Amino acid sequence: MITKKTIAYTISAILTILIINTKSMAQDHKIYRIAKITVDPAQLDKYQAALKEQMTTAIAVEPGVLSYYAVSDKKDATHITIFEIYADSTAYQAHIQTPHFKKYKETVKDMVKSLYLEDVDVIGIAKKPGM
Amino acid sequence: MITKKTIAYTISAILTILIINTKSMAQDHKIYRIAKITVDPAQLDKYQAALKEQMTTAIAVEPGVLSYYAVSDKKDATHITIFEIYADSTAYQAHIQTPHFKKYKETVKDMVKSLYLEDVDVIGIAKKPGM
Repeated sequence: MITKKTIAYTISAILTILIINTKSMAQDHKIYRIAKITVDPAQLDKYQAALKEQMTTAIAVEPGVLSYYAVSDKKDATHITIFEIYADSTAYQAHIQTPHFKKYKETVKDMVKSLYLEDVDVIGIAKKPGM
Repeated sequence: MITKKTIAYTISAILTILIINTKSMAQDHKIYRIAKITVDPAQLDKYQAALKEQMTTAIAVEPGVLSYYAVSDKKDATHITIFEIYADSTAYQAHIQTPHFKKYKETVKDMVKSLYLEDVDVIGIAKKPGM
């Protein structure tokens, strides 16, 4: 027997599934990337300054640039790893056309000895609130 | 001439410097690490489950475990990178003695084909609020 309660429950269940799907689809669109860069030791300070300027500008002005962690190997500071998160591929394509990104690429072109981009899938993210 | 205003300004400036120094000292104690792990392809699902359990438990119960990002290479999911942040070395030493970490190490010991830990310095972190 189909009661009002059954109908209400069914509609609620369908809406819940729609919300979950929308949410997971939105998450799936995110782009996670690791950039591995080797820098000319003589130009390391200048490279770091250019990188920091690019990162902070992109985060400040581009809604689809979500997160950058730039770190260097304690054993060799010229070995740099950048963990990057973009909202989706449209945001990433827009990012590489911005004046600040083009300025960064032009500035560092003779500082970077090697560049490897590793596109990655998320296994899990766990962090304290505010981190 | 030394006025009350000058004294107030000087005290305020000193306090500001002290606060900035304390803050930067606290940040300097954080441990940033990249773990690079290669996993037996036949046991990848089990490895990922064990890793996720370890990460979420550590974040939930250990005040000094601040952040984990675990990702896998899109070209080869057995190549895993984990970006880890701990409050300080005391927190990290306490972490590796916890039951959940020891359980993880025991569970994955025959799943992990290689493990390389890279201690890193932060060049810069830039991210959207909430990321």
